[in-house]
Amino acid sequence: MNAIDRLVEKIKLKNNPTIMGLDPRLEKIPEFFKKQAYKKYGTNEKGAAQAIFEFNKKLLDSVAEYIPAVKPQIAFYEVLGEEGIKVFRETCDYAKDKGLLVIGDIKRGDIDSTAEAYSTAYLGKRKIGFKEEAIFDIDFVTVNPYLGADSIKPFVEDCQKYDKGIFVLVKTSNKSSGDLQDILAFGGKFLYEHVAEMVTKWGEGIIGQNGYSAVGAVVGATYPQQLSSLRTILKNSYILVPGYGAQGGRAADVVKAFKNDGLGAIVNASRSIMFAYQSDKWKTMYSEDRFDIAARAEVIRMRDELNKELARKMAGRV
Amino acid sequence: MNAIDRLVEKIKLKNNPTIMGLDPRLEKIPEFFKKQAYKKYGTNEKGAAQAIFEFNKKLLDSVAEYIPAVKPQIAFYEVLGEEGIKVFRETCDYAKDKGLLVIGDIKRGDIDSTAEAYSTAYLGKRKIGFKEEAIFDIDFVTVNPYLGADSIKPFVEDCQKYDKGIFVLVKTSNKSSGDLQDILAFGGKFLYEHVAEMVTKWGEGIIGQNGYSAVGAVVGATYPQQLSSLRTILKNSYILVPGYGAQGGRAADVVKAFKNDGLGAIVNASRSIMFAYQSDKWKTMYSEDRFDIAARAEVIRMRDELNKELARKMAGRV
Repeated sequence: MNAIDRLVEKIKLKNNPTIMGLDPRLEKIPEFFKKQAYKKYGTNEKGAAQAIFEFNKKLLDSVAEYIPAVKPQIAFYEVLGEEGIKVFRETCDYAKDKGLLVIGDIKRGDIDSTAEAYSTAYLGKRKIGFKEEAIFDIDFVTVNPYLGADSIKPFVEDCQKYDKGIFVLVKTSNKSSGDLQDILAFGGKFLYEHVAEMVTKWGEGIIGQNGYSAVGAVVGATYPQQLSSLRTILKNSYILVPGYGAQGGRAADVVKAFKNDGLGAIVNASRSIMFAYQSDKWKTMYSEDRFDIAARAEVIRMRDELNKELARKMAGRV
Repeated sequence: MNAIDRLVEKIKLKNNPTIMGLDPRLEKIPEFFKKQAYKKYGTNEKGAAQAIFEFNKKLLDSVAEYIPAVKPQIAFYEVLGEEGIKVFRETCDYAKDKGLLVIGDIKRGDIDSTAEAYSTAYLGKRKIGFKEEAIFDIDFVTVNPYLGADSIKPFVEDCQKYDKGIFVLVKTSNKSSGDLQDILAFGGKFLYEHVAEMVTKWGEGIIGQNGYSAVGAVVGATYPQQLSSLRTILKNSYILVPGYGAQGGRAADVVKAFKNDGLGAIVNASRSIMFAYQSDKWKTMYSEDRFDIAARAEVIRMRDELNKELARKMAGRV
């Protein structure tokens, strides 16, 4: 089944278009995970990676029932070398076992022959001897469009072949995203609009039953105006919206990424869920050892907040 | 010592501004490495990664004396999961032990807080418990500018702090690099010129003794005209030139990346060196088991070809 169809199915099942980012910053995870893991494995990369894995599992145990997908950010695993990558893979597997779709936030982009290797790693299958096997085998990855069409093509081909999906960076959530993305091209279009048009084109051959293509786009919650204009250009694309919560995006902003049928976007929050127990909103109710319950409370709050705003939109009130 | 000063020193010592890319495609490396490793470790990711490591070591043993630096492409290691990443690290360490500088071709780019994690992984030091230690600890990485200034800043800060360097993608060597990079902006500049101006600015605070900044640029050998114009804009930047050899760039093209002092650029070749024994140029002289000698022959040929063309340039004849 087309990856976006799988995603839509999960969103409907959970009645929730919001997802959790898994960006486990070692310095922010509860102390007891580190203490235990350092004791067992040593105060080293293995210990740190295992602390993160235990943290991730507890989090996933607590919130999996309520969300359609998770988005692990691979940088926070790479920073622990091969031990981190092992835990990235194990975290993805654990999430899949819990029935979640996995969006690898890898933002890769390289020339064609190299892009092929990346795509094989995350979406496809590698061949060793006569055996063809998946490596990370996740459902979606994020990709960077700076190198143009031939750098995206290997991913699109694997989307076809293995029923996977990608989200192409279009307008990112960070403060200086405009440095390049907002450059006004001769002809009157912004660079991000050019990219959005390419995204639409790349997805034309892989449209699922719900009318959405396997080639989605990343547009930050922090740029609500662009979310509106890009929703129109990205005719058949799902929009992955980061920047909700800790980065400042609000519910009224992110609903602009949705179509009037209530579909068309997923909204990600990372820090505001993972470290909810440290937030002003929840810290008086939940102590560190109940971080997972705090995360679930925030997941449910965010789901309800967004669904309420979405209902208003669908009723034509915004 | 500033990373670019270290690079210039090595280039002068070896009398060679060309470097070897280490992109070990499993399907292309000599059969006997795979046979041995599969027997010892199994026909699996560990076996494949170990085969690649043995191949890399033999190659480095053969060519290290003749080149200033190597550029491993991380995609070909990621495709073997954590075993691949382990071998990426071991390969970097092995190259450093041989006196080579290491340029990690990782092309990362992400929002500020995530870019920080990437930079820590490859250039900086991570803190676990009270211990601060380097992870990959390589000299340079390549980065993608699509997310703008704040996505590059953490890398620039680590360049200052740890005497490292970066090469920012400006005009890449692949066929469709123009899709975004050649967009003509309102005001009359191409996108890649905008990026080049940013690169110059980002490097202003980190100029070494040789007058070059720690913030370099990637410009493909396959676009000689842009190499010329970008050489002017990138006042203080070293240019990393990929696309020589297998991708079609010629010596007369790549010398455009150099300044008249014979410095200012390094030229990378990957496939044409690593798999020289399979090339029309060398296959009648070297069989598979002498792949390392073939690679060395190609390294020397490329060095001499480029130095000859450079001498012509410095004499004002091109």
